[in-house]
Amino acid sequence: MSNPSILILAGDGIGPEVMGEVKKIINWYGDKRDLSFDVSEDLVGGCAYDKHGTPLHDDTMAKAQEVDAVLLGAVGGPQYDDLDFSVKPERGLLRLRKEMDLYSNLRPAQCFDALADFSSLKKDVVAGLDIMIVRELTSGIYFGEPRGIFEEGNERVGINTQRYTESEIERVARSAFELARRRGNKVCSMEKANVMESGILWREVVQRVHDTEYQDVELSHMYADAGAMQLCRWPKQFDVIVTDNLFGDLLSDAAAMLTGSLGMLPSASLGAPMENGRPKALYEPVHGSAPDIAGQGKANPIACILSFAMALRYSFDQGAEADRLEAAVEKVLADGVRTADLLADEGVTPVSTSEMGDKIIAAL
Amino acid sequence: MSNPSILILAGDGIGPEVMGEVKKIINWYGDKRDLSFDVSEDLVGGCAYDKHGTPLHDDTMAKAQEVDAVLLGAVGGPQYDDLDFSVKPERGLLRLRKEMDLYSNLRPAQCFDALADFSSLKKDVVAGLDIMIVRELTSGIYFGEPRGIFEEGNERVGINTQRYTESEIERVARSAFELARRRGNKVCSMEKANVMESGILWREVVQRVHDTEYQDVELSHMYADAGAMQLCRWPKQFDVIVTDNLFGDLLSDAAAMLTGSLGMLPSASLGAPMENGRPKALYEPVHGSAPDIAGQGKANPIACILSFAMALRYSFDQGAEADRLEAAVEKVLADGVRTADLLADEGVTPVSTSEMGDKIIAAL
Ligand SMILES: CC(C)[C@H](C(=O)O)[C@@H](O)C(=O)O
Ligand SMILES: CC(C)[C@H](C(=O)O)[C@@H](O)C(=O)O
Repeated sequence: MSNPSILILAGDGIGPEVMGEVKKIINWYGDKRDLSFDVSEDLVGGCAYDKHGTPLHDDTMAKAQEVDAVLLGAVGGPQYDDLDFSVKPERGLLRLRKEMDLYSNLRPAQCFDALADFSSLKKDVVAGLDIMIVRELTSGIYFGEPRGIFEEGNERVGINTQRYTESEIERVARSAFELARRRGNKVCSMEKANVMESGILWREVVQRVHDTEYQDVELSHMYADAGAMQLCRWPKQFDVIVTDNLFGDLLSDAAAMLTGSLGMLPSASLGAPMENGRPKALYEPVHGSAPDIAGQGKANPIACILSFAMALRYSFDQGAEADRLEAAVEKVLADGVRTADLLADEGVTPVSTSEMGDKIIAAL
Repeated sequence: MSNPSILILAGDGIGPEVMGEVKKIINWYGDKRDLSFDVSEDLVGGCAYDKHGTPLHDDTMAKAQEVDAVLLGAVGGPQYDDLDFSVKPERGLLRLRKEMDLYSNLRPAQCFDALADFSSLKKDVVAGLDIMIVRELTSGIYFGEPRGIFEEGNERVGINTQRYTESEIERVARSAFELARRRGNKVCSMEKANVMESGILWREVVQRVHDTEYQDVELSHMYADAGAMQLCRWPKQFDVIVTDNLFGDLLSDAAAMLTGSLGMLPSASLGAPMENGRPKALYEPVHGSAPDIAGQGKANPIACILSFAMALRYSFDQGAEADRLEAAVEKVLADGVRTADLLADEGVTPVSTSEMGDKIIAAL
């Protein structure tokens, strides 16, 4: 049987650095655990634009469709700010999500014990926090038509369209309920059904999927603005949150920041099962390309490493190895090892990106 | 000269209770400061639906257009959850905003010194916090067409449209820059220009208004997801934030919660100047109708009272009286007077809604 295949798209900014540490870990699994992967690499984002004039070449897109998992670093940087919308680095990422049909974006917001003090929230509010935000990723206002900037009378108007079909809502709802069953068995669905008809349909369909297929899971509904508030007030009230593409973008970033562990948080974007039974999948850290610290060996590779742990769990049926890798990260943090982003002002010397990777491998 | 006119729409839930305290204060101003208002009252929201079958009667709408200021309590309650979208309590509020053309929604997120411990954030993160969120309130996805739930093939699709014209962006940007000049002279504009064309137009127009009319004000741009993060991380970096209707809904609620003073926060919704030079205006607390505690004398009237202070400032040219009222609220808080929502578990006895109002009047 051939090895499972991985396509690495390290991207821009700190992407290549943090992905460098993941490559070390992939090699470690091949050497030490007899778990080998066929790894190929390619470009996405600004670096792809620099080479090909497009943030995602068609050949790269085709490769992404073939592999068992894509690992992505980060895209974007100030040198691309003035590019036309259609070739901005982000379009490469959005094209991957859309064409691979990765409709279910899993964003854990977890607070690492060793880092609870690092949150802007009080320790008791975040210590032990472990929630999962399931964000719809292939529809909604990110992709709806009509869209664009149009002339109208003597001025211009900017238009985007929020658009959700019943089946789009159903499949992401299912994915949230399935996850909840393996966790705290609670789902909270968020929309603005008091203002938006698309939110009314969202609420109705999530409720129907619950009532017909997942009555054993506890379901509640919350308006997204109240959801933002409750996340800031007492995030531990939540287990799984399911929401649309745009609300998910804001709410998951807020939740990530609350944990104080932003440089730590991974994500998985999953599609429908392929022939081999595995979902199409892309894994990426929640943080961005951080151009201000790129190339200095300062970046925290943990989010990218934990994204690979999610790949082990969701794409490669290696739940035990995922646990092992996550435990190694926790151990290193508990030992007080810190990259520069994690330093409070206590005179601890930060380790480099690569030292952090080495420590994690040592802990494995 | 006739007295300035006020239309009170107390609405549902705790609305009438908290508005009762504002009425006492209005009377106090007439008796003690020779500052009298012509006050009329009417219905909005669920109570208007119960009486008229619509959450805002045309006659009420007409009255709102005539007065110098509308004071609104809150709308909504579980008994109205199953009403048709078109007659839900919220539609009454949205109709007022739209037909009065109240495009600039001012939402201060302020942390009261006496309450800094009450936030879920660490004290140094919120103590002294004073930011102003300017939310566009009459356009965007709240009102854009097409909207609705439609049949498509063999399923339904929910559609809403985000839509901003240049002039809509211009006028709210101006309102943010004007405010900034009277505060910290800094504006941060938030959108998703990396994903939405309407965000590209937003960014471009805000920048142009800045470059042509407000070069003295410091302007920055941030993606709304990063904005949500930064609000949670270090909100004091902001002075004035300007953003669209939907982002403003989530971001201002998150910011309000961060202060720990949610039951305390007022808002002003302002339109273009009327013949008398005053803007059309509606004032309302940021909190909702809190049906769970309605009618029990437990509600905190401070947000509603501070909304009246904003009315004194923005509609009645009584900045000094607004300061006086705000100082009275701070004094009462500093004295340790607390409604039930503000109690940490320290054995302080809560005061009732009406006692809180009386204490504030005493402090005046
Ligand atoms: C980079 C950007 C297009 C993207 C998004 O808005 O989805 C990012 O913010 C994210 O959350 O993954
Ligand atoms: C009640 C609701 C329609 C309203 C909104 O979404 O604007 C509320 O959340 C607000 O922020 O004033």
